[in-house]
Amino acid sequence: MNPAQIGLLAEVGRAKVRIANPPTVAVLTTGNEIVPVDVVPGPGQIRNSNGPMLEAMVHQLGASVVSLGVARDEDDELAALIRRGLEADFLVLSGGVSAGVLDLVPGVLAKLGVRQVFHKVNLKPGKPIWFGVFSRENNTRTLVFGLPGNPVSSFVCFELSVRFAVSVLTGDIQPKQKMARLVQEHRPRGDRPTYWPAVFKDDGAGTIVSLLSWKGSGDLKTLADANCLAFFPGEERLYVAGEEIAVYLI
Amino acid sequence: MNPAQIGLLAEVGRAKVRIANPPTVAVLTTGNEIVPVDVVPGPGQIRNSNGPMLEAMVHQLGASVVSLGVARDEDDELAALIRRGLEADFLVLSGGVSAGVLDLVPGVLAKLGVRQVFHKVNLKPGKPIWFGVFSRENNTRTLVFGLPGNPVSSFVCFELSVRFAVSVLTGDIQPKQKMARLVQEHRPRGDRPTYWPAVFKDDGAGTIVSLLSWKGSGDLKTLADANCLAFFPGEERLYVAGEEIAVYLI
Repeated sequence: MNPAQIGLLAEVGRAKVRIANPPTVAVLTTGNEIVPVDVVPGPGQIRNSNGPMLEAMVHQLGASVVSLGVARDEDDELAALIRRGLEADFLVLSGGVSAGVLDLVPGVLAKLGVRQVFHKVNLKPGKPIWFGVFSRENNTRTLVFGLPGNPVSSFVCFELSVRFAVSVLTGDIQPKQKMARLVQEHRPRGDRPTYWPAVFKDDGAGTIVSLLSWKGSGDLKTLADANCLAFFPGEERLYVAGEEIAVYLI
Repeated sequence: MNPAQIGLLAEVGRAKVRIANPPTVAVLTTGNEIVPVDVVPGPGQIRNSNGPMLEAMVHQLGASVVSLGVARDEDDELAALIRRGLEADFLVLSGGVSAGVLDLVPGVLAKLGVRQVFHKVNLKPGKPIWFGVFSRENNTRTLVFGLPGNPVSSFVCFELSVRFAVSVLTGDIQPKQKMARLVQEHRPRGDRPTYWPAVFKDDGAGTIVSLLSWKGSGDLKTLADANCLAFFPGEERLYVAGEEIAVYLI
């Protein structure tokens, strides 16, 4: 409800109104390598950046966060926390969805009765994304998103999938895409459709976009400087300066 | 701070960060004719729609609301509540700034040492707006906005003045204007620059805007249906269908 609508309700004396609860989104980070934010990581360890990032993204959507913390790569621990996550409207996991020995998430989800809809998409970053549906006998269901563990992959997959799904429930679907002129030339490597961290601004004559010097799906530092993702649809060709491309606002 | 920045802070182990407090915005509705939202108005009375509406607008800006309720049109009561409002970073009043016998707000503000910067602007709706500054010896100050009491005037004046001032402090200045093609012709009455409640949408070829059937500054119902204000800069001429005009997103 927007401020003018709230004012209108007041004007006509609706001091109490019935509203829908915001959707609930459970967030679970997975991985033996993850340590809490206030711990110094040992060799092969990293701090939990995805949990706080994804929870902030859920918060921005106006949904309620159910914070499930970090699960180690063990079937029983994963199953216990995923079971709790399946009580929410949406469950968002990060990590454990690639092809490694310890990527246990798809198997545990299957055992708990979550039906896989797809696994892996032609996308950079974010290829390993997993999506499934948990249906209950009372016809309610939980949508389950297994996001890749690399932070920029997690971010991009959230933007492209979770944000849209939650927005359908909140009714607040914002236009996120616009056209912009490339400031510098760019030749994408490989043929995967790519979302590249970038900065757009208006230069008077229209919108221009500068690609940032991005090191890949682990490079959260560059993403934090971006205000959009420049989209390259997977053609292996030179994009020239001045060419119009689509940018996705973040 | 955005989610990627929060993730980055987590990644580098910044479990605690120093942040600025959000600005405080005091909201005071004035007028003998105002009754609470849950009371049935008698002859000549109206419910307090501006208080809830303006407080929702402050909330949207990420600022803290200081809710001062309703003041009757009496010097002492106004002075007592305004004094409390001057403890905030911003004080937003609605009503009491026109030229009537009971429009006491400018006089009381002057007596309390708030220096008037301007009173009345060439704007429709919103002509009676008052703006002043309260400066303290320690070099801090409170910006004071006296908005007109008509709800759509209050809304438009908040959008054009309070929102911008608060956004400078929060650092979150959003682009609010875009160009759109008029769906129907329109001839503004009078030569005041006008913000007219309207609905914009993308039609594939660009943005189009439909003017709503707006009855004037008291017509909150129409504003509640709008997603933008169409801007007419004060030329008394026919604007034709298909003409590009500026719209202000709300």
